[in-house]
Amino acid sequence: MLSKNQIKNIRALSLKKERDEQGLFVAEGEKLVSDLLPFFTCRSLLVTRDWANKHTTPKTIDYEIIDGLEDMKKVSSLTTPTPVLAVFQKPQIELDFSKLQKELILILDEIQNPGNLGTIIRIADWFGIKHIICSLNTADVYNSKTVQATMGALARVNVHYVDLIKFLEAYSKLDLPVYGTFLNGDNLYTTSLSRVGAIVLGNEGSGISNEVGKFVSSRIVIPNYPSNSKTSESLNVAVAAAIVCAEFRRLG
Amino acid sequence: MLSKNQIKNIRALSLKKERDEQGLFVAEGEKLVSDLLPFFTCRSLLVTRDWANKHTTPKTIDYEIIDGLEDMKKVSSLTTPTPVLAVFQKPQIELDFSKLQKELILILDEIQNPGNLGTIIRIADWFGIKHIICSLNTADVYNSKTVQATMGALARVNVHYVDLIKFLEAYSKLDLPVYGTFLNGDNLYTTSLSRVGAIVLGNEGSGISNEVGKFVSSRIVIPNYPSNSKTSESLNVAVAAAIVCAEFRRLG
Repeated sequence: MLSKNQIKNIRALSLKKERDEQGLFVAEGEKLVSDLLPFFTCRSLLVTRDWANKHTTPKTIDYEIIDGLEDMKKVSSLTTPTPVLAVFQKPQIELDFSKLQKELILILDEIQNPGNLGTIIRIADWFGIKHIICSLNTADVYNSKTVQATMGALARVNVHYVDLIKFLEAYSKLDLPVYGTFLNGDNLYTTSLSRVGAIVLGNEGSGISNEVGKFVSSRIVIPNYPSNSKTSESLNVAVAAAIVCAEFRRLG
Repeated sequence: MLSKNQIKNIRALSLKKERDEQGLFVAEGEKLVSDLLPFFTCRSLLVTRDWANKHTTPKTIDYEIIDGLEDMKKVSSLTTPTPVLAVFQKPQIELDFSKLQKELILILDEIQNPGNLGTIIRIADWFGIKHIICSLNTADVYNSKTVQATMGALARVNVHYVDLIKFLEAYSKLDLPVYGTFLNGDNLYTTSLSRVGAIVLGNEGSGISNEVGKFVSSRIVIPNYPSNSKTSESLNVAVAAAIVCAEFRRLG
């Protein structure tokens, strides 16, 4: 049985302000929670009685059995609640330039949609990209929609929030290529792609901002087909991220 | 001022059953509605007074001015309603095998999420794929979330719903390659890709069903990076669609 206080505390974590103050976030679903458990400190684990009767829960973690999905509904952010919910501690992620300069990284300039952010994290994980640098006005990685959309990739990708202009000023001193997607860019497939550097992705509506665009050394576009035909004006930003990352990694 | 009857009629279109019976669907937002207007018969167009004062509306279309966004909220499927909403007639789309056999087409085997379906339609449009064949249990293309996610691509891509096994039985007689994404498939980048044929994409959770899989002549996978590393177990289906379609079209 969940107390009123527990319900209040977990529901409060739907707000970024509360997540920041308490340093906590929520993940839901058996698969997602079990994927995250080895990587994050779990502060609270709720499972339904039905689920507990059918599964072995990890002995090292205190968990609480609640009556059923009706109870879970009181704290869940999902339309259809699942039998497992965990509250995790947000990790301390340090930004180490000496590591970044040996890697291919992603830079997000005001990605607004939490689902897109989560999908981009999952894509980064698939393609072995370990660091994502986000502008301060990018969606929060610990938003429940983002956490759910990462499908566990959150455990393997480091997401950093920074003053993007200051970051790019420092990054540009490394003299590494900075790629950015622009509708008037050069054909992705005929551009020389580096194994080390940054790929900038811009806001869903307005793309890469002018200020950030100044740091882009190579403007690229995913060509449509047939070329110059009348098609959609753009691709969804997570879709664009996928095609670009795949191209950078295609030669293995 | 919207009448109670109007509100009831438009809201009813959030249900597939009603959309099917009435042969209508809803699109919202200035950009989306204006993209669709030249391609679909508009049955009803609502704009807010504010919007009407600032814009010229097409003279050939009857539109109705409503008081404001508060009124729009009563009929909108969006969390944040927009000043423009249209009710369109669902088009009659004929399935013509003689055309299909000259094209690259997509086949969707039970894509459940309406947003994924919309994103896939937008991807198809970008890559000049004109026909998408859906199993009967795939999400409805006229679901408001799908319509919104297509960003207007709905106007240029024909989406057909068929008994997929029967369709594949007929399609297989054309002797064209049928590609399908499987986690144990062959590397996409070393597979010979045809300009004509079908690409099958499977359900978000369970992938391509066994029955449909029997018709796949070439099983492909998008390799992760570094190869065989511990990364996410899969990519979102729309993301996979994007990478595969891009690869088919990369040589222009």
